[in-house]
Formats: sequence, structure tokens, C-alpha cells
Amino acid sequence: MITPDWIAADWGQSQLQVWAIQGTDTVLASASTPLTPGHSDLSAMWTLIADWATLASPAPVLLSGYDGTDMKPLSVPCPPPSAAQAHTADLPPHPLQMLPDVIQDSPLDRLGSALIRVTGFLAQEPDFEGILCLPGALTRWVHLSAGEIVSFRSFVAGDLIAALTQMPGLPPMPQDPDTDPDQPNLLEAVRDGMAKPALLAARLAGISAEHSLNHSAQAPQRARLTGLVIGAELSAARAYWLGQDVAVVQEGHDPLAPAYLAALRDQSAMARPVDGQVLALRGLCATRNAAS
Amino acid sequence: MITPDWIAADWGQSQLQVWAIQGTDTVLASASTPLTPGHSDLSAMWTLIADWATLASPAPVLLSGYDGTDMKPLSVPCPPPSAAQAHTADLPPHPLQMLPDVIQDSPLDRLGSALIRVTGFLAQEPDFEGILCLPGALTRWVHLSAGEIVSFRSFVAGDLIAALTQMPGLPPMPQDPDTDPDQPNLLEAVRDGMAKPALLAARLAGISAEHSLNHSAQAPQRARLTGLVIGAELSAARAYWLGQDVAVVQEGHDPLAPAYLAALRDQSAMARPVDGQVLALRGLCATRNAAS
Repeated sequence: MITPDWIAADWGQSQLQVWAIQGTDTVLASASTPLTPGHSDLSAMWTLIADWATLASPAPVLLSGYDGTDMKPLSVPCPPPSAAQAHTADLPPHPLQMLPDVIQDSPLDRLGSALIRVTGFLAQEPDFEGILCLPGALTRWVHLSAGEIVSFRSFVAGDLIAALTQMPGLPPMPQDPDTDPDQPNLLEAVRDGMAKPALLAARLAGISAEHSLNHSAQAPQRARLTGLVIGAELSAARAYWLGQDVAVVQEGHDPLAPAYLAALRDQSAMARPVDGQVLALRGLCATRNAAS
Repeated sequence: MITPDWIAADWGQSQLQVWAIQGTDTVLASASTPLTPGHSDLSAMWTLIADWATLASPAPVLLSGYDGTDMKPLSVPCPPPSAAQAHTADLPPHPLQMLPDVIQDSPLDRLGSALIRVTGFLAQEPDFEGILCLPGALTRWVHLSAGEIVSFRSFVAGDLIAALTQMPGLPPMPQDPDTDPDQPNLLEAVRDGMAKPALLAARLAGISAEHSLNHSAQAPQRARLTGLVIGAELSAARAYWLGQDVAVVQEGHDPLAPAYLAALRDQSAMARPVDGQVLALRGLCATRNAAS
């Protein structure tokens, strides 16, 4: 029987991850479950931690990234939220603290699950001056300076690539998470997307024509579409990486982060990988421990 | 009992339309059935014309836009194909003539169902010098001069808009075919898409943020996405409309052609509507009658 002092919980873009923690940051156990977009039923979390927190041992939960309440968000520029700014809810079977989101007024945007990773990254590198890039269904570019979140920008990336690869008239584009992205096709498409972002719909028509005229090889098309989307994004987000120190957040085996890293390095940007799950846990621990 | 001299058939992007014809161009009856993308089973046509053409009265069929055979396509620059270039198949219950497609080598592209509309338009306006714009799932811009197809360019437009409006995290965007496109939102988005095509993914993220922060009005979002896609296309296809005489082909009640017309006129382009079904029928009649 695991009886943690507290439970750290990260409501992410695609999964909910929980850690049973003793003391400040000793992980006794962890678990995760997939989340569908728009899902906001906390019962997924209660199920996941049912063995760790009962009425007899009501370990408190610190939850980040959750969007199901009317918590007032913070606005940039600001440091990451502290535990004192969390919304406390006494829901059975145990006390729950939910961290608020950080938003930006213009352009209107929100950090969502990226926020706790930013918190963890600043706990790890408090003097960092540069950009945290968090690829995903929504990719976020976050400008950090003097321990604060200065500004950020979101792009629908993973979801856009998924929608494009499933369009009618295009060849099947199976995803193979075990293989590296097709680098030559990827980088060629990144350069094309950066130079001519308006041609995305024409490139799709080209793939469709190649497919129907039997000229297409299936394999590289997903890399091409991924590259076109990333290329247009690099063009629009240039201020967030040109001449900047960029850390790219890798979530599990998601193939998107390696594609961003390759694309940024191809543009001679200073880019290095950091682990998203490690950052989320570190962010939750730093938030809780700063409060005690 | 209808006993036509011949049957005209248009295998379009979204529907198969057939006409029972007496003499050169007297329409005795017509019928249509929806087509799903990639569908290439001729039995849909046999069913549609079963009452007009039987073993006892084997009316010949002239079919355009069909992609189910290994017919050698023509290459631009070229005039529209003649009946003499059709592929003849003696399939029960009646003789079938299939018109070949027109392709372009670089960039690789095909006219598909747009071709018979081009044929009909040139039959109607043989001295036309300018652009035929055919909005649809795939939008095609066709440069016509001296009675020939000079070049063309396809953009995935309607299918891209449909894919974007159905993405996770965005508000519901019901299509209402009975209302005009939301002109102010549409045209503002067209200008935005033309000026900053690389920002499409950021605009999607903005709509997602507005939606999740309860700042969004649902109604104009479809017009916004439609405008962003058309705007990027107008930017990339500028050579096809700037200073050109443009005819925009309207198919049924598809709301896309009015959106293109509004966008082109907002850019001070000379644009006028023409009816796609009229052009298809005229193209089939012109092709058959030129041969006899």
C-alpha cells in the first residue's frame, strides 16, 4: 500500500500523469491515462489515484493544466503561479489544489499544459534567457527572461498535421512512431513552407495529383506535410527563435519534437531537447515546496 | 418512356450528373447522384440511366471527368479533347465514350472534372482570353488563350476548409448553405490570409483560445477560416487573377464560389460568375457535335 505525502498531477494535452510523492520530491509511484481533447471530467484522476489517496489517507493533490473551473488566470508578463495562487477545492475524497493558467491578452492566448513545464524549466535553469518551444497538438513558443514569462505564441501544429494527413484524395500516411522522421524530405519541406507558406493548399493538390496519377511514393508524404506545417510556423514565429537560445520539449515518443529540433538546427538555430515529463514533475514539486 | 439519341454524363467532384439528349442539345430529362471522393464504380451511372438506355434502345453515353481507366491524358498547352480522342468501351448495355483528362507536367497537376467546364466555356466564349476559376473541394485556376488551355493550378480549398472546421479544440462551425457568407468577417480574413499566410496555424490557435476562454462568437468562425484559406490561395495564385478577366464557376448552391467572387472583387479583380452545370452540359454537347 502506497501512502504518499502528496500527489502531483499534470493534466496534459494528450494524457493525465500522476505521481505519488514522499517528502519534497521522492516519487513512490506514477501512473497515466490518455485524455481526449476537451475532456474535463476529474473522475479520470480520482480513478488513477484511488489506491494512493483514500478517506483514511487523504493525500492532497496539486493539479496543473486543468481547465474545468472558473479560476482567474494570471496575465503575462508574470512569474509562474505559486501554490498560494492555487484554487483550493475540498472535493471528496481529498483536498485538491489547482494551479491557475497564464494568459496573454494580445493576441489572446493561453499556456495550458505548457505552463507547468515552463515552471519546471525555470526551477531547473532560473537564469535562462531565451525560448522554450513545446511541440504538440498545439505548439507553444514561450519567451523567458529574468525568471518571468514575457510573452508566448501558440500554433495549431500536431492537430493540423493530423487533419491534413487524413484528408480525402491524399494517399494513406500511416504514422510510425518507431522511425525517425524522414529527414531529407522533412527539411526540404520545411524550407519550402518557410519560403512559400501560401502554397500549402497547392502542395496538398500536388500530392493528390501525384497520388491519383500513380506517381507517389507513400512513405515521405507525412514527412512532407509535417515539414510544410513546421516551415510555415518557423516563418511566422521567427522572432521566437532567430538568434535565441531555444529548448525544445520532448513529450514521450511524440515524433514532433525531433522534427522541430531538426528544422531549427537546419536553420542554424541553437536548439536542444528537454524532457516534458521531467519538467512537469519538477514544476509541480518546485511549486509545492516553495510554498512550504 | 424516354428514348434519347445520346446521354451526356459529367463525373464531377461531388456528384454525377446525366442528361438524356435528343438531337444536338435538346434535354429530355436529367438526373444526378452524389459521389464520394475516390468513388469510381460505373454502376452508379448505369443505375442512373437505366430508364433511358436499355438493350432495346442502346443510347450511347459520352462521359467526362471519369478517372477509372488507363486512358492516356493530354498535356497542356492543348485545346480541350475532341470526341475523336475519347476512349471507347463497349460495355453492356450500351456504348460508352470516355473523354481523356488534361494534365500538366510541372507542377504535376490534372484538370479532372474542371475540364468539361473549360470545354463548355470555350464553346460559349471561343475568343476568351483570361482565367476560369473553378472553386470546389479542389479549386482550379485555368489560363485560357487562343482557344487553348495554356496552364493551370490546383489548390485544395473546400476540403481544407472542411478539415479545419472539424478540428478538435475549435468551436462547432455548422454550415448553413442558405445564408450568404459573412462578408465583413470573410473579407477581413481574406486580407489577413493574403498578407500573412504563414499565420494560419496561429489563427487556428487564436480561435481555439477564444473558444476555451469563452470569448468567441460561433457564427463568424467558418467565414474566418474560409477567408484565411482563400486569402492564402489568392496570394499564391496572384498571377492567375491580377489584371486578368476572371470567370468564377458556381456549382449548385456551393457557398465557395460566392466567397471567391467577393474576395476577388475586394481585390479589385474583374470577376463574374458562370454556372458549372450549364458549362458541363454545353461542353459535352459541343464535344459530341463537333465530331458529327
